[in-house]
Amino acid sequence: MTWVTGADGSAYGVTNLPYGVFAHDGRDPRIGVRIGDFVLDLTGAEAAGLVLAAGAFDRPTLNDFMALGRPQWTAVRQRVTELLTDTAHRAAVEPLLVPLADVRLLLPFAVADYVDFYSSEHHASNVGQIFRPGQPPLLPNWKHLPIGYHGRAGTVVVSGTPVVRPAGQRPGPDGPTYGPSARLDIEAEVGFVVGVPSPLGARVSVDDFADHVFGVVLVNDWSARDIQAWEYQPLGPFLGKSFATSVSAWVTPLDALADAFLPAPEQDPEVAAYLRDVPHLGLDLRLAVEWNGERVSEPPFRTMYWTPAQQLAHLTVNGASLRTGDLYASGTVSGPERGQVGSFLELTWGGAEPVKLGAGETRTFLEDGDTVTVTATAPGPDGTTIALGEVTGTIQPAR
Amino acid sequence: MTWVTGADGSAYGVTNLPYGVFAHDGRDPRIGVRIGDFVLDLTGAEAAGLVLAAGAFDRPTLNDFMALGRPQWTAVRQRVTELLTDTAHRAAVEPLLVPLADVRLLLPFAVADYVDFYSSEHHASNVGQIFRPGQPPLLPNWKHLPIGYHGRAGTVVVSGTPVVRPAGQRPGPDGPTYGPSARLDIEAEVGFVVGVPSPLGARVSVDDFADHVFGVVLVNDWSARDIQAWEYQPLGPFLGKSFATSVSAWVTPLDALADAFLPAPEQDPEVAAYLRDVPHLGLDLRLAVEWNGERVSEPPFRTMYWTPAQQLAHLTVNGASLRTGDLYASGTVSGPERGQVGSFLELTWGGAEPVKLGAGETRTFLEDGDTVTVTATAPGPDGTTIALGEVTGTIQPAR
Repeated sequence: MTWVTGADGSAYGVTNLPYGVFAHDGRDPRIGVRIGDFVLDLTGAEAAGLVLAAGAFDRPTLNDFMALGRPQWTAVRQRVTELLTDTAHRAAVEPLLVPLADVRLLLPFAVADYVDFYSSEHHASNVGQIFRPGQPPLLPNWKHLPIGYHGRAGTVVVSGTPVVRPAGQRPGPDGPTYGPSARLDIEAEVGFVVGVPSPLGARVSVDDFADHVFGVVLVNDWSARDIQAWEYQPLGPFLGKSFATSVSAWVTPLDALADAFLPAPEQDPEVAAYLRDVPHLGLDLRLAVEWNGERVSEPPFRTMYWTPAQQLAHLTVNGASLRTGDLYASGTVSGPERGQVGSFLELTWGGAEPVKLGAGETRTFLEDGDTVTVTATAPGPDGTTIALGEVTGTIQPAR
Repeated sequence: MTWVTGADGSAYGVTNLPYGVFAHDGRDPRIGVRIGDFVLDLTGAEAAGLVLAAGAFDRPTLNDFMALGRPQWTAVRQRVTELLTDTAHRAAVEPLLVPLADVRLLLPFAVADYVDFYSSEHHASNVGQIFRPGQPPLLPNWKHLPIGYHGRAGTVVVSGTPVVRPAGQRPGPDGPTYGPSARLDIEAEVGFVVGVPSPLGARVSVDDFADHVFGVVLVNDWSARDIQAWEYQPLGPFLGKSFATSVSAWVTPLDALADAFLPAPEQDPEVAAYLRDVPHLGLDLRLAVEWNGERVSEPPFRTMYWTPAQQLAHLTVNGASLRTGDLYASGTVSGPERGQVGSFLELTWGGAEPVKLGAGETRTFLEDGDTVTVTATAPGPDGTTIALGEVTGTIQPAR
């Protein structure tokens, strides 16, 4: 129970408490935590001595706080909970609550490296069937390791940032043509944000996931399928992805997701020793994709084949170091049903089966002016339901 | 003519003047410029009022200086040249010269995003012949766009940093096995360092190369061929590359390379309009690869099919922004002859033709303890020959 008006019973109650960075009233960016429809100004709270975080809240990003490590993350969360539930603190804390409607939310962390995995069996199989009909839907390596690649960290943008339709080379019957992408798509994903770094040459064990990962964001990995199709052999996606990747403004701490962990799908064949996580846990995050306000899909994250702990162990098994602010995304989240897919490529089966949106409109891929919003909920502590911060974006015409 | 002892006539004379970051005498990192076998302490020079750079030399990386832009880069270079050539400045400047032997060279810039291209026709053809015998050596897209992908910025290390042999999954006759890479290779490349950023949603023209690119480094993109072979379908190289990428400690400014530009190989078929650079210029950089001290190859950068201006225009044609510190590498530099290749994969033709090193030793791929050093020279201003900073590394056993 919190004393903050309207927060109890909402998806942003005191069992949630995601972190973000906000601008307000013309001042420098500040760090905050969301409670109901307010932001608690943690920069102000630390300055007032209400919270101790080694000065990490006097920053324009969460990075310094994320670098502090799990004991500090937990201690701060406990203290913030105390401030928001014990009415003895109300007089001191209430002046630090800013209405959400009055703030502008910024990119919550400086992205170090961005890695994108490909860990949904349903998504990988769908893509295989669409692009390689008649062939086995999964490539031979897929069940042996979490396939992934590096994306462009510098074009990770916060939810709400407009997305300019990319131009580039697309395949054509008489060779490539140049122009705006005609197959602009989304990928609804979940991203994991690294707080605690690891040294070069060392590995991070599957058991150490919670020591390194601070929290979770929603991700929309915008994808130009035509550009990607022409460029991706043999070195993978490049300009088909690098124009923009949107993340939610709120980072949900792992502590808020303690009740969302559940057994992940069984893996067969058995995976290499460095990928064996015991227990083998996924997350019960229930995503929803809205296309111009209409809910078109509900991707279930619990169906992901590879777990975030396995992804982290794989990412570092070659001795690659981690930095504070590293972001690794799950890959498109798709369940077994058509209404559970995380991309429009799958929803329209390669563009062959348009979907109806309200008011008699149909779509295959994104048109200029379209807005896509990805949301998610999860079972929170104490029987509550918590929301992850949404990730939304609107397509602007090519320049 | 410089008054600095021994510098005239060396490859680090006053027409070269590359920038770096050094640690010395237990003090914080400082920015310097190399002259002969000395480092001119620019942090000290700016503090003493001898050079004006808006405070950008009072930093542990070159990034702030690189962000200033070409007019400032040129002005500082002119001023440094004046300080090192006019004996009137000798008394003030000489105390700021530190013997190179006394300093530790650090990573010269904070890497934002790292992109690796694949722009040598000879290299791409060799790889095609080794891995796809009997097929056309180049894929259909190769001559239409500079193929590239994002690498891991967080594992870019300075020359001299030991490279721990990576472990991972390798393909085997009965499925993948796990262990240290048995096909550890190099890729000798040239890297371009972005100084001036560009906004999201905009493109950088081929004509604006010199406004954005500050300078050049040598790159060794260490590659575990067995790990790469198993993982790279369909999203490209990941752990086969991400364990380490070495760069030279010295960044050679473009101004020092003004006389090294020369016409690049003709392109057929004609490229898309956004890739047409007039004049179409490559760089006459003469690389050399030493394996345990023995020169095994001399890759000529002038043979590269795609130019750095084309790579930059391609990188941003989809609206991707540039940040200060972005590094894009050319891809392995290989000329038409076997003695001109930039990887051991090519030098030993997939490991089938071992090379002899001194003292009766043979090699296919790298063994523990091996050292590889890549150097390069270029025609410098006023008929001089200048050296690029070397990039070297020694293989440590897998952990």
